Amino acid sequence: MKVGDNMQPITSKLVTQTIIERPAESYKGNYGRVLLIGGNQNFGGAIIMAATAATYSGAGLVTVATDPQNFTSLHARLPEAMVVDYHQTDYLLGLATNMDVIVIGPGLGTDPFAERLLTAVLNAVHQPQRLVIDGSALTLLAAHPQPLPATPIVVTPHQMEWQRLSGLKISEQTPTANHQAQQKLGVIAVVKAHHTTIYTDQQVWFNPGGTPAMATGGMGDTLAGMIGGFSGQFTDFTNAILSAVYLHSTIADDLAASRYVVLPHQISALIPKYMHDFSQAELDD
Amino acid sequence: MKVGDNMQPITSKLVTQTIIERPAESYKGNYGRVLLIGGNQNFGGAIIMAATAATYSGAGLVTVATDPQNFTSLHARLPEAMVVDYHQTDYLLGLATNMDVIVIGPGLGTDPFAERLLTAVLNAVHQPQRLVIDGSALTLLAAHPQPLPATPIVVTPHQMEWQRLSGLKISEQTPTANHQAQQKLGVIAVVKAHHTTIYTDQQVWFNPGGTPAMATGGMGDTLAGMIGGFSGQFTDFTNAILSAVYLHSTIADDLAASRYVVLPHQISALIPKYMHDFSQAELDD
Amino acid sequence: MKVGDNMQPITSKLVTQTIIERPAESYKGNYGRVLLIGGNQNFGGAIIMAATAATYSGAGLVTVATDPQNFTSLHARLPEAMVVDYHQTDYLLGLATNMDVIVIGPGLGTDPFAERLLTAVLNAVHQPQRLVIDGSALTLLAAHPQPLPATPIVVTPHQMEWQRLSGLKISEQTPTANHQAQQKLGVIAVVKAHHTTIYTDQQVWFNPGGTPAMATGGMGDTLAGMIGGFSGQFTDFTNAILSAVYLHSTIADDLAASRYVVLPHQISALIPKYMHDFSQAELDD
Amino acid sequence: MKVGDNMQPITSKLVTQTIIERPAESYKGNYGRVLLIGGNQNFGGAIIMAATAATYSGAGLVTVATDPQNFTSLHARLPEAMVVDYHQTDYLLGLATNMDVIVIGPGLGTDPFAERLLTAVLNAVHQPQRLVIDGSALTLLAAHPQPLPATPIVVTPHQMEWQRLSGLKISEQTPTANHQAQQKLGVIAVVKAHHTTIYTDQQVWFNPGGTPAMATGGMGDTLAGMIGGFSGQFTDFTNAILSAVYLHSTIADDLAASRYVVLPHQISALIPKYMHDFSQAELDD
Repeated sequence: MKVGDNMQPITSKLVTQTIIERPAESYKGNYGRVLLIGGNQNFGGAIIMAATAATYSGAGLVTVATDPQNFTSLHARLPEAMVVDYHQTDYLLGLATNMDVIVIGPGLGTDPFAERLLTAVLNAVHQPQRLVIDGSALTLLAAHPQPLPATPIVVTPHQMEWQRLSGLKISEQTPTANHQAQQKLGVIAVVKAHHTTIYTDQQVWFNPGGTPAMATGGMGDTLAGMIGGFSGQFTDFTNAILSAVYLHSTIADDLAASRYVVLPHQISALIPKYMHDFSQAELDD
Repeated sequence: MKVGDNMQPITSKLVTQTIIERPAESYKGNYGRVLLIGGNQNFGGAIIMAATAATYSGAGLVTVATDPQNFTSLHARLPEAMVVDYHQTDYLLGLATNMDVIVIGPGLGTDPFAERLLTAVLNAVHQPQRLVIDGSALTLLAAHPQPLPATPIVVTPHQMEWQRLSGLKISEQTPTANHQAQQKLGVIAVVKAHHTTIYTDQQVWFNPGGTPAMATGGMGDTLAGMIGGFSGQFTDFTNAILSAVYLHSTIADDLAASRYVVLPHQISALIPKYMHDFSQAELDD
Repeated sequence: MKVGDNMQPITSKLVTQTIIERPAESYKGNYGRVLLIGGNQNFGGAIIMAATAATYSGAGLVTVATDPQNFTSLHARLPEAMVVDYHQTDYLLGLATNMDVIVIGPGLGTDPFAERLLTAVLNAVHQPQRLVIDGSALTLLAAHPQPLPATPIVVTPHQMEWQRLSGLKISEQTPTANHQAQQKLGVIAVVKAHHTTIYTDQQVWFNPGGTPAMATGGMGDTLAGMIGGFSGQFTDFTNAILSAVYLHSTIADDLAASRYVVLPHQISALIPKYMHDFSQAELDD
Repeated sequence: MKVGDNMQPITSKLVTQTIIERPAESYKGNYGRVLLIGGNQNFGGAIIMAATAATYSGAGLVTVATDPQNFTSLHARLPEAMVVDYHQTDYLLGLATNMDVIVIGPGLGTDPFAERLLTAVLNAVHQPQRLVIDGSALTLLAAHPQPLPATPIVVTPHQMEWQRLSGLKISEQTPTANHQAQQKLGVIAVVKAHHTTIYTDQQVWFNPGGTPAMATGGMGDTLAGMIGGFSGQFTDFTNAILSAVYLHSTIADDLAASRYVVLPHQISALIPKYMHDFSQAELDD
């Protein structure tokens, strides 16, 4: 396959086909046990925003492993989530074993503890769990390369994190170069930019939406949480990722029609409504 | 009585007859002192959601006995509740004596402390107090069977908790089998499922509402809190329980008309409005 | 004067005459420095609700002296308030000296520390400061009678607190008996009931509004905060109190038109709008 | 130049010219790294309000250096912000080096620690960083005059703080006298009053808006945060400041059309909408 040839837009049709109506006979266990790991003493807001996005994306059960300092602010905003002290590594890894999706990185930081935790989690994750690696975890991974588990994985770098991970300078990050780098990495890559591009083994996708009103802290954490939430519910991993990227920017675009800046929590609040609308949309063909 | 013969739907008429207009001359003491016990260091959100539901259901006074770690997040969301450290067992049991309703279980956990606390509370509850046993408390009760107090009690298991409690596998949980199990248990049982069924000594009820948009963490905690709140206000215990089950799903169904997933706190926020509407509805017959 | 003869309703006209339009050239110092003291480790929500009501009532500067455990939940709901650890008595009393209004009692509790703090505050308050004594502080005062400072004071008991304070059983609390008790006490008394009555040296007032939807924890704390907020802004102390009582129930009555129960924070949120409407209302005569 | 001759109103046209539409190809780094320093154990709400205003003003990345006691309440309201313990001075100063804008003062207090921190920050700030000095930091600066860094600086005193800083009694604070004092000080001065006046080396501006409904605690913190947020995005420092002053009071004026008092957080919530409207407004000439 020659990379770069086949860049395709994510379409509303793909999202409509992914976010299907829920069967009446179902329970929370059907919609994903999602574990989010991150939030140190300086960046606790990141894991709050990611967990909020996962919960509003319809994840059946959301657990947050973070510094205990963040428990109270998390619960003040999101009582729906359960919490774990991420220093209790044995307990955490035992818990991780039963999860459907693991999101690691938002606000994790890059100190030695974060590095050890990342390594421990990468060693523990196993088929058929899905893994979302975001934020600080990508910086750690770039600095300390290590084998990734043999399970579906997506990385969600912004351009600077992608530079660290792929070795490509931002000016060199063309779709072709990115795709080659992704193929070496062997996992799906969501490279966040004005128009985000997504690289799978087979395909390069680009996201038609996006607005500079999204250029504010926490947008990436929110996307990582949405990808986590969608990955626990929808069978096709790639489509779950693409749909999260598409919906994230679609909501932001709509909010930006009347706002100079869009805050991450405003996007999360609207996810249930947008998912509903896409689940009810007619498929044309 | 042959069990299973008489499965009846909860009707809006029953709810209308239960949620009566409040007499003008009344004060908060008339609407129930409700004590909710639960919320350990990992599951604090559960007791927050339960207490929120009890408060928005119109309970006159709400007290939450929980791990002190949860005090701040609870008050940030619900200043209306009072708090007690559930490790201060003597103080807590003294307080419990004056309560009208006790809800135990949301986020309580299943460690030895939780087990001791449950036993102490079961020993302290007395006529005519009403007792709602939910969540972890049901798992504890299944693992360590013990006599229940001779007072009105309702258990609110989901299907897996009901399996533990009744010994019936989920596939065996037919109305007839459930009713037989309930009669052995001797307390009202609310078995939560897509269509929740409710078992009393006399009757099997089923809830006509319910939506897969409710398949998310915290829904059960919210229902337990509503049952607690309603039980403190309405004379007939069975009707209070049935009305809470009915309203919980009615609100969720309405929210799900425009949302893919409904979050527990969104239901609680609407309880006062729905209670008002039912209290004002005409009775047809 | 023969007490009881002259019971008058609070009128919207009185409120309109009290809540006057603010002069353009004014600053926060013109609208009252209000100090609220209360909120122990069990009843922190009470002082949060009182401070919220004071702030939304337009108090220029609001300071809350409370247990440090309540700082975070208070700020999560009300960043507009400043906080003081009420155990730092010297610092607190120094601060109190410069206040225009002091509200003591919501959630204060009745332990020896609370008693000492109340006595210290009663000794420190001085002309022309206005003092609102509410909740636990009334129970303490009833148990340990002590001289009150020679400054404008209002007490805001519910019927049981009034029984403790006046010695009148609830069944004996007629306007005439209440007025006699108030005259012995020598301070304005707001006796909260379905129709609240207010006793001044000259007059008995009753509040025409009120709804059983208000029969929930925190309503009294909210009223105390409103009285504190109004007392810092409006010249006539009696009219400030009467207007707070009237507006508190007017907002609740309007909310109860579509709600079975009205929560205290919902009242506070609407105070600025109602104050605006009354400040703009035409005076008929 | 004869000072005082050239007092000009801030116009909506100036704001429209300042708040330009964002270029599509941009990222959060383009909109300012803003560090806010303040919030001691008594005045934590001030830094929460300032950080909220900065974030809703569109700052790309917001970091709050404060007492750790304020981390949780800040994150409960604003997960978008990152936090630093302001006692970790070395870490903080290292962080400060990479910031575009530094706001110091809201709720900082005036104790020796605050004084040392202010001095350390003043020593660390460097070209082309922009510095906003507000609240307690102005009181400290008046009490302990020290050289200011050679970089764009704005001070935002209310009239009493300006008295301390300039030596001018409130009654003496005429535009001419203020302008002379500002020229001695050598930094831009925003003197907050019913109609706020702004003094630059070249010009005296006055703000046409403002309402006594703004006379409540936290308004100044909110303005400081807005100035910080605008300064990180808009090229001309003076215009960024003027636009923040103008928008702050414009939003308040609109809210005051239906509210007796306007709370600071209500202003912040509307900043994105107002910025959008000004960014889309037609320029007439």
